[in-house]
Amino acid sequence: MSGEVRVSMVDITEKPVVYREATARGFIRLRKETVNAIREGKVPKGDVLNVARIAAVQAVKRTWDLLPLCHPIPITSVSVDFNVREDGVEVTVTVKATSKTGVEMEALTGASIALLTVWDMVKALEKDERGQYPYTSIQEIKVVEKIKRA
Amino acid sequence: MSGEVRVSMVDITEKPVVYREATARGFIRLRKETVNAIREGKVPKGDVLNVARIAAVQAVKRTWDLLPLCHPIPITSVSVDFNVREDGVEVTVTVKATSKTGVEMEALTGASIALLTVWDMVKALEKDERGQYPYTSIQEIKVVEKIKRA
Amino acid sequence: MSGEVRVSMVDITEKPVVYREATARGFIRLRKETVNAIREGKVPKGDVLNVARIAAVQAVKRTWDLLPLCHPIPITSVSVDFNVREDGVEVTVTVKATSKTGVEMEALTGASIALLTVWDMVKALEKDERGQYPYTSIQEIKVVEKIKRA
Amino acid sequence: MSGEVRVSMVDITEKPVVYREATARGFIRLRKETVNAIREGKVPKGDVLNVARIAAVQAVKRTWDLLPLCHPIPITSVSVDFNVREDGVEVTVTVKATSKTGVEMEALTGASIALLTVWDMVKALEKDERGQYPYTSIQEIKVVEKIKRA
Amino acid sequence: MSGEVRVSMVDITEKPVVYREATARGFIRLRKETVNAIREGKVPKGDVLNVARIAAVQAVKRTWDLLPLCHPIPITSVSVDFNVREDGVEVTVTVKATSKTGVEMEALTGASIALLTVWDMVKALEKDERGQYPYTSIQEIKVVEKIKRA
Amino acid sequence: MSGEVRVSMVDITEKPVVYREATARGFIRLRKETVNAIREGKVPKGDVLNVARIAAVQAVKRTWDLLPLCHPIPITSVSVDFNVREDGVEVTVTVKATSKTGVEMEALTGASIALLTVWDMVKALEKDERGQYPYTSIQEIKVVEKIKRA
Repeated sequence: MSGEVRVSMVDITEKPVVYREATARGFIRLRKETVNAIREGKVPKGDVLNVARIAAVQAVKRTWDLLPLCHPIPITSVSVDFNVREDGVEVTVTVKATSKTGVEMEALTGASIALLTVWDMVKALEKDERGQYPYTSIQEIKVVEKIKRA
Repeated sequence: MSGEVRVSMVDITEKPVVYREATARGFIRLRKETVNAIREGKVPKGDVLNVARIAAVQAVKRTWDLLPLCHPIPITSVSVDFNVREDGVEVTVTVKATSKTGVEMEALTGASIALLTVWDMVKALEKDERGQYPYTSIQEIKVVEKIKRA
Repeated sequence: MSGEVRVSMVDITEKPVVYREATARGFIRLRKETVNAIREGKVPKGDVLNVARIAAVQAVKRTWDLLPLCHPIPITSVSVDFNVREDGVEVTVTVKATSKTGVEMEALTGASIALLTVWDMVKALEKDERGQYPYTSIQEIKVVEKIKRA
Repeated sequence: MSGEVRVSMVDITEKPVVYREATARGFIRLRKETVNAIREGKVPKGDVLNVARIAAVQAVKRTWDLLPLCHPIPITSVSVDFNVREDGVEVTVTVKATSKTGVEMEALTGASIALLTVWDMVKALEKDERGQYPYTSIQEIKVVEKIKRA
Repeated sequence: MSGEVRVSMVDITEKPVVYREATARGFIRLRKETVNAIREGKVPKGDVLNVARIAAVQAVKRTWDLLPLCHPIPITSVSVDFNVREDGVEVTVTVKATSKTGVEMEALTGASIALLTVWDMVKALEKDERGQYPYTSIQEIKVVEKIKRA
Repeated sequence: MSGEVRVSMVDITEKPVVYREATARGFIRLRKETVNAIREGKVPKGDVLNVARIAAVQAVKRTWDLLPLCHPIPITSVSVDFNVREDGVEVTVTVKATSKTGVEMEALTGASIALLTVWDMVKALEKDERGQYPYTSIQEIKVVEKIKRA
């Protein structure tokens, strides 16, 4: 173990409390039939996007408890937008806070959980006859923009 | 509201308790310098893969609390493997249980949180001088295999 | 302290695992204008009933963690129905499980959190000019039926 | 979905941090024999009011995690008082914080969980011979007062 | 990293579901004045032992979420007993379950959180004039007995 | 119940927000063979100290949810150090925050969960042939220092 860097939370005690904002975006590829079912509100488990939106907001607030070295941050705003495309669903999550550290991990966590929730809601439509998911895939979760303003 | 399908948890009361297994895989693209730092154990926040592994195991166990319509499942095994590639880190999560429903959402949640934790650990190495992440991106989270055995 | 009964969880180790079901119902009284806004989907914070429905499902799954002496129960089904009345919103929550103890506390917790979520969503419409809630009130949370079947 | 208001957390980033206080009150109707058992400390599961008090304090602190669109608030005080009446138990919960948004949902959540915990503690005394609860009912959870002071 | 053992949850999928019981015991050394205040019910924050008892029961149920590689276990009984000694408080926690793995970590976690809660409740009485705790100390948390019965 | 002090959270609303730091230390006695296995990285469940370190950081952040009357505190730093001794493992946890109340309970909770996690990781090495733990014991969890600076 000697020589290796020890796991530790970054010490942000002395950092100033400033305005923070971050936007993350992600995409889940779905079958065309599934996309149509989402658009027409015919997914058996219910309104896919609303459930995913709520799951995302809650995941943003819990990020400090999911990612071991994240600091607890007093989130003041979360917005979650979906763009239902031909080939799947794109989610954009924007998080705001007045805090000592940035909120990009919060936005990324919100986007990831939103996409996982979409998947969970459409499982029955995406599985093939052998119970596998040959087509479904979460793609391209990234940070669109990060803002820090004194 | 009329005409629309109502959100609801699938009723699995009558389903048999059988062996379940699912494997999910995901990939995060990282800068070459970051990959080297991970390999050499020189990431300032510590041993990236071990932290990500533990975060993944815990996320698997909490899936029912993160994805609104998932059922609580008595997980009996979680294994998390990393493959440090030239261009990033690949994670493979396998989950087992004896339960009334499958564990693919658990494996996918574990893989997603593992990759988010990797990102959180290497933030300082991936950010550019403007604090943005032009290169970092989570890619291709999918189910490799799902097994159900009576 | 002597003479007093000590707090303890009921020991259910030896109880048989049987089919359990419970239905709880609750009502929140709201202003007529608020009820109309819910019906017409014009509440500024969004689709009130869908958010409440999801909050209820999640609360049902967390009952063991909210009520100190409740046992963890493997919930297999939760359904949440709303009846938007002239004078407020009525919620009915049905929970099913195959377990050693009943699920009425789970159904009651789901109904309570559903109604609190409705309140949270319509706060802006229910507050008077002094920021008080002279009209809003949660009323009549009760167990409609409890079923136990070997 | 077009035309409908989208679910979103209210953006409180720019709101000032001021003193907040809220008091909520609720009542659970119980059988006379149960009320006597509570008064005499003879409820088999233990000291009903102390368990309910603690459950309420904890629920207040977790409100942001139970109600999907609530903001996390740094609670600085919670007090929980009971009034054991002839026909049941009344609970009053007061919450204080210095924060960007009010704490009435926290007080209401505390009162609700207190009453649910009372119910859980006296289940054995309230059930009839068929395992039903013909008499028990939570009634009248409301906000008594909300204070905001710059 | 090569050569080192990888972190992983033990695979208990194939283990039989049998009766499990474990008892853990722990002790916190306190000032004589504090012990007297506990005995006489004069601790300003309230009934120390009841709060500690409830915290212990809840911690037992959450052990899987606190210790990263623990499996979720359907706990069926928790009992928490205190022995107020001359020099401090001793706690004994017994946990039961019918499960694939033992419950000693659950009993130990319950005992630890019980003692930490006692400490939290009597902080004001244990601190010296400089705000330090020269005397207070948790001592001897151990497993008294572990039972496994087919 | 009359005459007894009622359980309540201390009201810290009016206290100033100042720098807080606390260090706690604890020790778990282990068999010599177990200590050697930890040192040589040969514990079957994996890298004991890294898992314990992460569990400690997370427990520090959740202290308000584990100890019923603790206030939520915005933790800004957690560091966890181990000293592998001949006869066991010593852990030292330091917590920092800028807050209205001290962080010693957070440091103590982190130390306790670190030691419990060590135990969980080496269970197989510490158990005797009858499945008992005659030697293992957590000892001496205490506060080393508490700092408050305006």
